[in-house]
Amino acid sequence: MAASSDTTGIQYFELKNFTFQNGATLPSIRIAFREFNPTAQKTALVPTCFRGRINQTFNFTTGVLQNYRVIVVALLGNGESASPSNTPDFPDTLDYRDCVRAQHTLVTEHLRIPSLDVVVGFSMGGQCSYHWTAMYPDVVRNAVIICSSARTSLHNYQFLEGPKAALINSVDYNDKELRAQNIAPVRGLRAFGRAYSAWLASAEWFEERLFEKWGFKTLDHWADAGAKSYDDWHPEDLLIMLGMWQRSDLSVIGDGKMSLEDVLGGLTPRILLMPCLTDQYFTWKASKKEVEYLKSGQIAIIPSVWGHMGGGGANQEDIEWMDREIAGFLSKS
Amino acid sequence: MAASSDTTGIQYFELKNFTFQNGATLPSIRIAFREFNPTAQKTALVPTCFRGRINQTFNFTTGVLQNYRVIVVALLGNGESASPSNTPDFPDTLDYRDCVRAQHTLVTEHLRIPSLDVVVGFSMGGQCSYHWTAMYPDVVRNAVIICSSARTSLHNYQFLEGPKAALINSVDYNDKELRAQNIAPVRGLRAFGRAYSAWLASAEWFEERLFEKWGFKTLDHWADAGAKSYDDWHPEDLLIMLGMWQRSDLSVIGDGKMSLEDVLGGLTPRILLMPCLTDQYFTWKASKKEVEYLKSGQIAIIPSVWGHMGGGGANQEDIEWMDREIAGFLSKS
Repeated sequence: MAASSDTTGIQYFELKNFTFQNGATLPSIRIAFREFNPTAQKTALVPTCFRGRINQTFNFTTGVLQNYRVIVVALLGNGESASPSNTPDFPDTLDYRDCVRAQHTLVTEHLRIPSLDVVVGFSMGGQCSYHWTAMYPDVVRNAVIICSSARTSLHNYQFLEGPKAALINSVDYNDKELRAQNIAPVRGLRAFGRAYSAWLASAEWFEERLFEKWGFKTLDHWADAGAKSYDDWHPEDLLIMLGMWQRSDLSVIGDGKMSLEDVLGGLTPRILLMPCLTDQYFTWKASKKEVEYLKSGQIAIIPSVWGHMGGGGANQEDIEWMDREIAGFLSKS
Repeated sequence: MAASSDTTGIQYFELKNFTFQNGATLPSIRIAFREFNPTAQKTALVPTCFRGRINQTFNFTTGVLQNYRVIVVALLGNGESASPSNTPDFPDTLDYRDCVRAQHTLVTEHLRIPSLDVVVGFSMGGQCSYHWTAMYPDVVRNAVIICSSARTSLHNYQFLEGPKAALINSVDYNDKELRAQNIAPVRGLRAFGRAYSAWLASAEWFEERLFEKWGFKTLDHWADAGAKSYDDWHPEDLLIMLGMWQRSDLSVIGDGKMSLEDVLGGLTPRILLMPCLTDQYFTWKASKKEVEYLKSGQIAIIPSVWGHMGGGGANQEDIEWMDREIAGFLSKS
C-alpha cells in the first residue's frame, strides 16, 4: 500500500508487552505523536479522528491552544500508531480503552506530564477523549468533545455499515493476487469514500455549493477528490478503526454494572460538548441528552451548515467560533 | 436473475415505436399497470417509486382512494414495465418524460380516461407526478407529491452515489462469468442495500428502535433483511432508475429557457406537497421553498420520525395522517 503522507515532526513511543481489551498481547506496539510548543506550561492532548493523520489534524495551535504544549496523538489503527498495516499479528478488534491506556503511558511515563489541562477531540477523537475522562479523571482537568458521542448511536452505526459493505465487497478487496502483492484495493477504497461522502456535510452545504469554497467547480470534482483521498489508506486500518467507532459505548467503563447515564453522571473532569447544528450522525440532540447527566458539563452548538466537517476545522468561521467558545470554557477552569 | 415477485392483477400495455428522450427508439415497449376498483367514476394514477413493484406500492385503496378507480403504473426500469432486464437494446438512460409520455398514452388511449382526478406519487413516483403536472396540465386535476422534489438536490444526488459505487465496484458485478450466466450479483446488490439503509429512516427512528415494530429483534436483523430484499433486483434496472432520479429536474420542461421557479410558477393543476419532517434527503425545507412558487400549491408536513419511509406507507399512524390530509385536499377540488 502507499506510504502514508507527511511524517514531519512525528515521534514514536514504544510500549512493551501491550495487552489489548480483546485479550491479545503484542510484544511491542508503537504510539505516534507530535509535540507543538514543547516548552509551554499548560498541556493539551489531541487524539486523531477517523481517517485522521497527525499532520492533517486540526490542532488549535494557531488559536486557542497557541500557548499550550499540544501533543497530537494517533489512534491505534490509523497507520501511524500501531495498526494492521504496520504491525504483524495485530489483533482483530480495537477498543478506545486500548488507545487511552497507551496514550496515558505516553503522557505520564514517557513525557512525564502528570496532568493534562485539556483533552480536545473531534469525532472518534472525541469518543477517545470521553474515555479519557472516565478512565483517568485525575489526569484530565478539562475535555472538549467536538461532534462526537458517549455512545455510538444506532443511526451512526448503520451509516458506517454502508462504506464498510462497499469496501469489503469490492472487486479488488476480494482479489487475492492483488492483496498478496500488497496493492491497495483502490476501487474498494474509493467506493468506501463515495458511500461516506454525503454524510460529511449537511443538505444545506450541498445546496449552497460550498465545495466551491475549496476550489471545486462541480460536486463531481469534489466527490472524485474525496474518493481518491482514500487511496493511501490501508483497508484493514480503516476497518479496524470503523469497528472501534461502531462499538463505542462509554458504559463499558462500569464493567457492565452501570448504565451510560450513571457513567456520565460520575465523570469528574469539566466537559464541553460541542456538536454541530447540522451534523447528520453525531447529532446535537444526542449531545444535549448527554450533557444533562454530566456534573460539570456544558454544551455549545456550532451554528454552521458545514455539518460534521464543521467541527473538524473545515471552515474558518467555525474555527474562530470554536476558538472563542473553548477559550471561554478554559478561562473558567 | 431471480424472477420478480408478485404479478397478481398486472396487465401490460404495449407501445409501438417508442422514442426515448435520449434519442433511442425501440420497436416496442411495455408498460405494466394494475387497476383497482375499475368501475369507480373518479380516477387516480399512482406511479411506483424507486425499487417499487406494483403490488408492493402503497396505493391508498383502503383509505382515501377507496372510491377511486386507481391505476398503479410501473416506472420504466422497474423490471415490470420495459427495463434493461426484460427488453433487449434498452437505452442507457431514462428520463421521467419517457415514463410520463408512455403513461399518458396508457391512460388516455388504452384506458380511455380523458382526465385524472389525481396523480399520487411517493419519492421517484412523486418526481414522476410532478412531471405529469407540467407535461399534461389538462389531464391532471390534482397531484399529491409525497417525500419528493421538483429537482433532485445535490445532497440527494451525492447520497445515491454511495449505493451506486458499492454495486458497480462489487466483486460479483464485475465477474464476467457470473454476468454471462445472468446470475444476480448478490454481494453487490446487498452492499447497495447497506449503503442505502441508514438514509431510509431518521436518526430518531433508529434510536427508538422502531425496527422492532416490524418484528426485528436487532438492528442487524433489520439490516440483513433489507440487504437481502435487493436479491431479486436486476442491477441495471436499479442503476437506470437511479440515474433518472439523480438527473431529475422539472426545469427540463422549459427546454432550457425557464428557471425551475418559473416552471413551478406555471403549473396549473392543484398540488399538495407532503414531505416528511425527518426525511433525510427529500427535506421538508426544500418542499417549503417549492410551494412558494406554486400557484395552486399547498404543503402538509408528515409529523413522523419514520423519515423517508413515513411517506411510503411504512407506518400506520402516518398512513392515517396522510389519508386525512389528502381527503381534505381533494374535497376542496
